Amino acid sequence: MEFETAALAANLRTLVLILDLAGTFVFALAGATAAARRQLDIFGVLVLAFAAACAGGIVRDVLIGATPPAAITDWRFLAASVLAGGIAFKWHAAIERMANPVRMFDAAGLALFAVAGTQKALAYELNPVMAALLGMLTGIGGGVVRDVLLAQIPLVLRAELYAVAALAGAAVVVLGDQFGAPPVPSALCGAALCFVLRVLAIKWG
Amino acid sequence: MEFETAALAANLRTLVLILDLAGTFVFALAGATAAARRQLDIFGVLVLAFAAACAGGIVRDVLIGATPPAAITDWRFLAASVLAGGIAFKWHAAIERMANPVRMFDAAGLALFAVAGTQKALAYELNPVMAALLGMLTGIGGGVVRDVLLAQIPLVLRAELYAVAALAGAAVVVLGDQFGAPPVPSALCGAALCFVLRVLAIKWG
Amino acid sequence: MEFETAALAANLRTLVLILDLAGTFVFALAGATAAARRQLDIFGVLVLAFAAACAGGIVRDVLIGATPPAAITDWRFLAASVLAGGIAFKWHAAIERMANPVRMFDAAGLALFAVAGTQKALAYELNPVMAALLGMLTGIGGGVVRDVLLAQIPLVLRAELYAVAALAGAAVVVLGDQFGAPPVPSALCGAALCFVLRVLAIKWG
Repeated sequence: MEFETAALAANLRTLVLILDLAGTFVFALAGATAAARRQLDIFGVLVLAFAAACAGGIVRDVLIGATPPAAITDWRFLAASVLAGGIAFKWHAAIERMANPVRMFDAAGLALFAVAGTQKALAYELNPVMAALLGMLTGIGGGVVRDVLLAQIPLVLRAELYAVAALAGAAVVVLGDQFGAPPVPSALCGAALCFVLRVLAIKWG
Repeated sequence: MEFETAALAANLRTLVLILDLAGTFVFALAGATAAARRQLDIFGVLVLAFAAACAGGIVRDVLIGATPPAAITDWRFLAASVLAGGIAFKWHAAIERMANPVRMFDAAGLALFAVAGTQKALAYELNPVMAALLGMLTGIGGGVVRDVLLAQIPLVLRAELYAVAALAGAAVVVLGDQFGAPPVPSALCGAALCFVLRVLAIKWG
Repeated sequence: MEFETAALAANLRTLVLILDLAGTFVFALAGATAAARRQLDIFGVLVLAFAAACAGGIVRDVLIGATPPAAITDWRFLAASVLAGGIAFKWHAAIERMANPVRMFDAAGLALFAVAGTQKALAYELNPVMAALLGMLTGIGGGVVRDVLLAQIPLVLRAELYAVAALAGAAVVVLGDQFGAPPVPSALCGAALCFVLRVLAIKWG
């Protein structure tokens, strides 16, 4: 039984890490594409990629007292940001041909971080309502930092269903946890719900 | 004697909580009114209300190491923000008819958070000068976040006597503490001084 | 041996403090000059001086969990900021006659904080790569806060070799530490390299 709990905790940590790294990569793509569109040079693009990608996780870790944050102590977050930044800098002409690339990557980052933030808050034993709220904040963080650094009003304030989508994804994770569902499927459901809500809002907005 | 100390500490915690919740409500009103004026939709208004209202307390709690911050762990801060945001969204036409509504609510939030921040810093045994400084930072935080998110230069940098008013209110609390005055009246005096200074600056500015 | 370790740790703390205070002073000069150019009044200038000067160190201390941050608990940081802010407010006409004064002070602050941040991260036993990264973040922080508060895109995103210069300075400190070099000369070398790189980039940009 104790062994099972330890194994579950290790699984949860792995799940949070994977969601965090994936979220870092797509938020870095969104930040770097927005920076390249503003014709910043390669250094500016890489810095904005890192800042936008790691802000969500850093804010979450600072708020729950998990310092130093994973984004600072684990080189893989830097590597994922730099990789995404380099890709966006080299191929941003191709990326721009996609419909709304910044918003699409942003939606994926929102979904991944909202779910990862909620899982980590639950692991740190915040109560369910506040875990969902912290998940929402984690998801919002990256996009806010990107837009503030580019001196424009953040997407979360201008776009419909942005914070609500993050909150819905986080709520699925919290409800799954309350009813004893295994964490991986409820994380996937939560992320999918958040992403679909945002994409629908972009399409119909 | 020990019992008295424990009772005093409990009273102080209650005082900080009440001041924090009141500050959250008025900063949320100021943020939501500013957002509604910019014609953000209901979601944007609610997000800005929460961000502006809770930033001051979150910054203070992170700086003194009291993580997770009260604004994240206690649902009443979310409730106060959402309530104020809803009121501002529904009745912002009526609120706008008041003179300078954003600045008035902002002045009240500044006063309440400056005093609450100072009290909490004293409870965490910071030295008097730094407790006053942290109180000032706590008061300033909410308005800065609101204005940065709306992509404009923060009021604290443009308005006369803004940081000075917060520092004066905080200094009253610190002096009261040094001379052994009971915390509730010195908190009320500090908040009143800060609020009056700001209102006079708005009237005469 | 134990005595030597304790003496070394005390020396390191003194070194970080001196670098931090010097960085605070020059970043405060850069922030206050930028604020005076925008014709903010004396209060706005002082607030921006303090915010820009202390942001780098506060962010670093929060990220490594060293709360409350030195910039809040030690009155000398406030004193250095206010002194620099007062000088910049009174003599900004003379300062403006220098070539690029904001960028020059900013380069000095970047160099000092990058080195101090790296030293403090090493003292908190972060691994070498992440210590260099945290040093870079510490250096960048002050300028970002200054530019965000003045509602413009941060220098780090617009200027060539900005983050790279900070990273180079931090790398010198990390390499010195790895090869057992004494901390003072490697700090001076790192700060000099970072400053020279930035000044060359400003001259040739």
